[in-house]
Amino acid sequence: MQRAVWAFMVGMAVVAGGCGLGVTGDSSGDAVELRKLDQQWSAAAAKSDLEATLSFYADNAVALPGNAPIAADKKAIRELWAGMLGPGTTVSWKVTKAEVATSGELGYLYGTYELTMQDPKGGPLVEDKGKLVEIWKKQADGKWKCVVDTYNSDSPQPSPVPQK
Amino acid sequence: MQRAVWAFMVGMAVVAGGCGLGVTGDSSGDAVELRKLDQQWSAAAAKSDLEATLSFYADNAVALPGNAPIAADKKAIRELWAGMLGPGTTVSWKVTKAEVATSGELGYLYGTYELTMQDPKGGPLVEDKGKLVEIWKKQADGKWKCVVDTYNSDSPQPSPVPQK
Repeated sequence: MQRAVWAFMVGMAVVAGGCGLGVTGDSSGDAVELRKLDQQWSAAAAKSDLEATLSFYADNAVALPGNAPIAADKKAIRELWAGMLGPGTTVSWKVTKAEVATSGELGYLYGTYELTMQDPKGGPLVEDKGKLVEIWKKQADGKWKCVVDTYNSDSPQPSPVPQK
Repeated sequence: MQRAVWAFMVGMAVVAGGCGLGVTGDSSGDAVELRKLDQQWSAAAAKSDLEATLSFYADNAVALPGNAPIAADKKAIRELWAGMLGPGTTVSWKVTKAEVATSGELGYLYGTYELTMQDPKGGPLVEDKGKLVEIWKKQADGKWKCVVDTYNSDSPQPSPVPQK
């Protein structure tokens, strides 16, 4: 009977260890990983490296940019970044908070960005500051990728579109 | 020995059931729950019910509104909503996608919003459409609350602030 009790306890421990149950889950390590990946992502964008920047997105990712329509697939996300990165642009961001589920496959972070860019209409160099939220998901190969990327400006909204 | 093996299996099953391990986890049920809660949230805002609207946020929630600074605590979130809801405002939103971690305590959704509001400067009624992302976390009492709420307009950005 004691052997059965012991086996029951071991059985519980085996599964508890595998599903991150309890205080000592691996979620804080994953949050550190997300911060590190996001720093690399910001560095890739700061160098205007389009391919490296796009490599952080999952295949089914969406981007929800501020003051623009949703980019609902990778092609649209590529166009979004292609229109932003270039010699006239300096962009970077940093994490305020990152958190991962105890199951270790879903996490998020939010933070702030700074953007300086040449006005595409030929105007002066302009600057913008804002906020971002990213949702990350561990893929089948164990790599974290961004599945939802959104950001918005701290600057006031333009005059909204008049009601028809 | 057979009793020990059986006890081992029962022990595994008990914990696996409690942590949502495996294909039949409760994460899809939780995603349905998030959709339902978000619908209730939108309905509360549509009625301009400030207290009901605020009740969906966790105590440590942050809101990252488009074209405005971060609302980093509940007081700032209250001011944000108090400035938006009222007789001149009609707001509603709906979910495009909702997903919850297999551990069942962290989830997100994104969707679209529609807003019609009286210009606070006394101008005409204006309308805005945009996108939103919400991150939800199951609290100690088992209730889901929003921990990060962000949204942005589909309308073009105003002329950015000139570089100093």
